[in-house]
Amino acid sequence: MSIHNSARALTSEFGAIVGAGNVLTDRAQLLPYVTDWRGRYVGNALCVVRPGNSAETAAVVRLCAQSNTPIVTQGGNTGLCGASVPDQTGSAIVLSMTRMRSVRALDLANNTICVEAGCVLAHVQQAAATAERLFPISLAAEGSCTIGGNIATNAGGVQVLRYGSMREQVLGLEVVLPDGRIWNGLRGLRKDNTGYDLKHVFIGAEGTLGVITAAVLKLYPRARQQVTAWASVANPADAVTLLQALREHVGERVTAFELVSHFCLELVLKHIPGVRDPLTDACSWYVLIELSDESNTTPLAAGLEHCLERAYEQQWVTNAAIAESGAQAQAMWSLREHISEAQRLEGANIKHDVSMPLSHIAAFIETGQQRVSQAFPGARLVVFGHVGDGNVHYNVSAPLGQDTRGFLASAPAVNRVVHDLVHEHGGSISAEHGIGQLKRDELPRYKSALELDLMRTLKRAWDPHNIMNPGKVL
Amino acid sequence: MSIHNSARALTSEFGAIVGAGNVLTDRAQLLPYVTDWRGRYVGNALCVVRPGNSAETAAVVRLCAQSNTPIVTQGGNTGLCGASVPDQTGSAIVLSMTRMRSVRALDLANNTICVEAGCVLAHVQQAAATAERLFPISLAAEGSCTIGGNIATNAGGVQVLRYGSMREQVLGLEVVLPDGRIWNGLRGLRKDNTGYDLKHVFIGAEGTLGVITAAVLKLYPRARQQVTAWASVANPADAVTLLQALREHVGERVTAFELVSHFCLELVLKHIPGVRDPLTDACSWYVLIELSDESNTTPLAAGLEHCLERAYEQQWVTNAAIAESGAQAQAMWSLREHISEAQRLEGANIKHDVSMPLSHIAAFIETGQQRVSQAFPGARLVVFGHVGDGNVHYNVSAPLGQDTRGFLASAPAVNRVVHDLVHEHGGSISAEHGIGQLKRDELPRYKSALELDLMRTLKRAWDPHNIMNPGKVL
Repeated sequence: MSIHNSARALTSEFGAIVGAGNVLTDRAQLLPYVTDWRGRYVGNALCVVRPGNSAETAAVVRLCAQSNTPIVTQGGNTGLCGASVPDQTGSAIVLSMTRMRSVRALDLANNTICVEAGCVLAHVQQAAATAERLFPISLAAEGSCTIGGNIATNAGGVQVLRYGSMREQVLGLEVVLPDGRIWNGLRGLRKDNTGYDLKHVFIGAEGTLGVITAAVLKLYPRARQQVTAWASVANPADAVTLLQALREHVGERVTAFELVSHFCLELVLKHIPGVRDPLTDACSWYVLIELSDESNTTPLAAGLEHCLERAYEQQWVTNAAIAESGAQAQAMWSLREHISEAQRLEGANIKHDVSMPLSHIAAFIETGQQRVSQAFPGARLVVFGHVGDGNVHYNVSAPLGQDTRGFLASAPAVNRVVHDLVHEHGGSISAEHGIGQLKRDELPRYKSALELDLMRTLKRAWDPHNIMNPGKVL
Repeated sequence: MSIHNSARALTSEFGAIVGAGNVLTDRAQLLPYVTDWRGRYVGNALCVVRPGNSAETAAVVRLCAQSNTPIVTQGGNTGLCGASVPDQTGSAIVLSMTRMRSVRALDLANNTICVEAGCVLAHVQQAAATAERLFPISLAAEGSCTIGGNIATNAGGVQVLRYGSMREQVLGLEVVLPDGRIWNGLRGLRKDNTGYDLKHVFIGAEGTLGVITAAVLKLYPRARQQVTAWASVANPADAVTLLQALREHVGERVTAFELVSHFCLELVLKHIPGVRDPLTDACSWYVLIELSDESNTTPLAAGLEHCLERAYEQQWVTNAAIAESGAQAQAMWSLREHISEAQRLEGANIKHDVSMPLSHIAAFIETGQQRVSQAFPGARLVVFGHVGDGNVHYNVSAPLGQDTRGFLASAPAVNRVVHDLVHEHGGSISAEHGIGQLKRDELPRYKSALELDLMRTLKRAWDPHNIMNPGKVL
């Protein structure tokens, strides 16, 4: 049988499992599934297969295992490192999980929700809110990214400081293994010490070890109070000091602590209509602070005001505004949330999603400015991020007047300067976006040979024929 | 060379690595190292080797790998499932980590501490307190158990409800692998998505995959306020309802929520001098509640009082006492903490450390009472535990008058009844104590063949010669 015919036969067998209407082969139909969110990678696929339940998923994977067909599992396809799209050979299938989107169970006494992999993050947030609970993972793509993708990439976002990453929200998993068997690890237990905790191997593995089909997630008491402030600080070191002081006084009520450089604010004020600077005097750096409390009787705003006054006396902050309404709070968040778009409107930029110990943030930012300026004169730094958990989005914008293509060609050299510095500070070259194909070839420079060896040994042990998202991560 | 001579040669080579004084071979010296904490297992060993640093540990492991010598890593030897003692063949070494007890680094801005595996838990708590921080893992053996053992068994304790288990406290690990290589994964990062998160495979693996030599642990803001209460409830279902109501009103300030049956209280009042019942009227069940707050300005006691009043109106609690001093709080905790001892003084008992979704606790306790009474007439249930995280210590005491030996002989049958019921409720047969050798043979009854297969594949991939704590867990 020719390759062409065998592909056609395989496609028809997939159709027999999931229904012919759920197998896409037309190039125009495939295109959105083989193109990554940033449009940087355009691959090819044998077909897109859309299973409707775990048994169908298992049958598809079994067929792939028998025919040695690579599987690229995909949720909302909003990943930023190209992990959810296939390479250009056209030998892989895209396994799209978006039909598996039910909430299987909601257990209020246990504070858990069991959802299928294709559930959109915002729907899970909504299901929790309807039950007067909180599901705390929140990020820009929440309206289209899926829980399966969030788990496979260990998604982060703005509330990690308080609640941890996606990994910390997962109590149990259901996974289809590379040979098509279904592992039912859907436990709702907060304490379980009965052998290796296998779920953690699949979480963050970017689809290279199995297909996540469902998960049991933690829910939390919802917040009854929130207070938001925008403060100016002289430098990142003062921001870190302010965070320490805040946490000492109000503890884990600090749900967000975002750093914004003055240049970021300038870009937003320049490109985004309808926004305004909450403070009257310009400063080099700002922080956006959000406190939340499950109790509505605690003096949350007064506590923040007290902390900020004390910080002003200590000269850790130079000025601050506390939002007096939901609309004012939203206006502050709007400044933070529009940085990426403003930066795009300004022109080409090279992005870095890095993290490091909080104690290193200030030195990293200072030395980074020097090294980048020296190596790429005129390059403009767009520095912001979830500094409360050590995560900085450290982006480099083209010098004024330089053409986009020319600047983007220097991306590998820029990455080298930035990531080498991150590594010197004990940091990570991918805080929350993962490795995918984008950073795969950089990984061996920063990860020890021994650690890569352990990862490869594990991959070979569980996916000996390398059919799960080959060429990603490792 | 005879086996005897080869053992002697090996011992002398260990001495060349760690110093002859740190290799113990005398049977009397070995005894405490080969006997488990409960005195249930008495094994034998080639020798005890006590390395002073990671390089020595690696050299010892390398030598074991070359000579195919099994390694039983041991911390404080306070484990409850026999994981930290060798079998009776005398072929293994005990690798005692207690000389490696330094605090390598304390990073206040990053809220992390880096400690060696042999650090005693209480010392880490103390180091955190001295730095005005909290290290939240707290359990009965904290004065002698070590951080390495806490990590290897994913220790729990009374504050898991708020802070999670040991696993959640670990940001980075240093591990000597079965071939003697050292993996330096000592990161202090709260966000890092650069490949498989290998530390989670070693955490809770009970020494079967490598030797943990050091760890980076999270620290938290310390509590500035604490309030403790003792409340009576009609049944476990009301206790769960009360917990939900509390969490809804004061959120994660609930740091402990312990269930105590009336029989437990009776045993403590009978056997422990100087304790007293905080309430005047007897009830079937009690809960010990502790709230903590990092802020000293929030009305914590008033909040608890309000919640308890509301619960009284709703008839979820029948009576309650709020501690009005540290001494009163300590007296309440003393009741809870003396249950194990009182139970021992009462006579033989068969212990179960189980967990399940909170929504199942009440039904489990009710059905358990029926099944145990039916199968073992007169057996008395000693039920207490960290019900806030679903963990129940479900112990069965001998019927009055039955001799100890006779009752303990029925342990396998009792375990079967209890663990089968736990399994029916989606629970775990080991919430926080691990598997070790005690529950190894029970595991295949409750864990799917597929999951055990994944675990074995992983074990074979990373420890192909099975020298790391063989015969434990799997």
